[in-house]
Amino acid sequence: MRVYTILVYDTAAERNAGVLRTCRRYLRHQQRSVFEGELSAAQFVRLREELRQRIDADYDHILVYTFPPGTDPQRQAWGRPDDEPPDIL
Amino acid sequence: MRVYTILVYDTAAERNAGVLRTCRRYLRHQQRSVFEGELSAAQFVRLREELRQRIDADYDHILVYTFPPGTDPQRQAWGRPDDEPPDIL
Repeated sequence: MRVYTILVYDTAAERNAGVLRTCRRYLRHQQRSVFEGELSAAQFVRLREELRQRIDADYDHILVYTFPPGTDPQRQAWGRPDDEPPDIL
Repeated sequence: MRVYTILVYDTAAERNAGVLRTCRRYLRHQQRSVFEGELSAAQFVRLREELRQRIDADYDHILVYTFPPGTDPQRQAWGRPDDEPPDIL
């Protein structure tokens, strides 16, 4: 079963690049700190474990929304269109 | 009809406080740049117009996800628990 996932990370600058690289292997990069996509249960667990090893649990904060299969969120972007969000973090 | 809304903003530092204040009047503040909650169609339009007047459309970027009524996303926080996200932006 695959779940629709939206992930927003808020991490210290020195850990951003590693978090970004990890998330990119599982999800689509939508906006600087936002990733999105469908994950299997196994992928979800692997992503969570990899990120938990990368972040400082006392400082960094990652918010993950999961939705039932087939959820089709409408997405709107206000302001600067973001084809490929800048990687300069 | 009310829609479930997740909003993530990525704006220049000097505009963050104004965007934060505006979003707070409509949605719950979940993480530094993340707001969430249910909006009526009229509230959604008002929030969009207010934010569009506050941001620099050539620089700032706001991502808004909307979901059908009754959508009940599961939310997980990895890392630092965030009772009330710090306002120091």
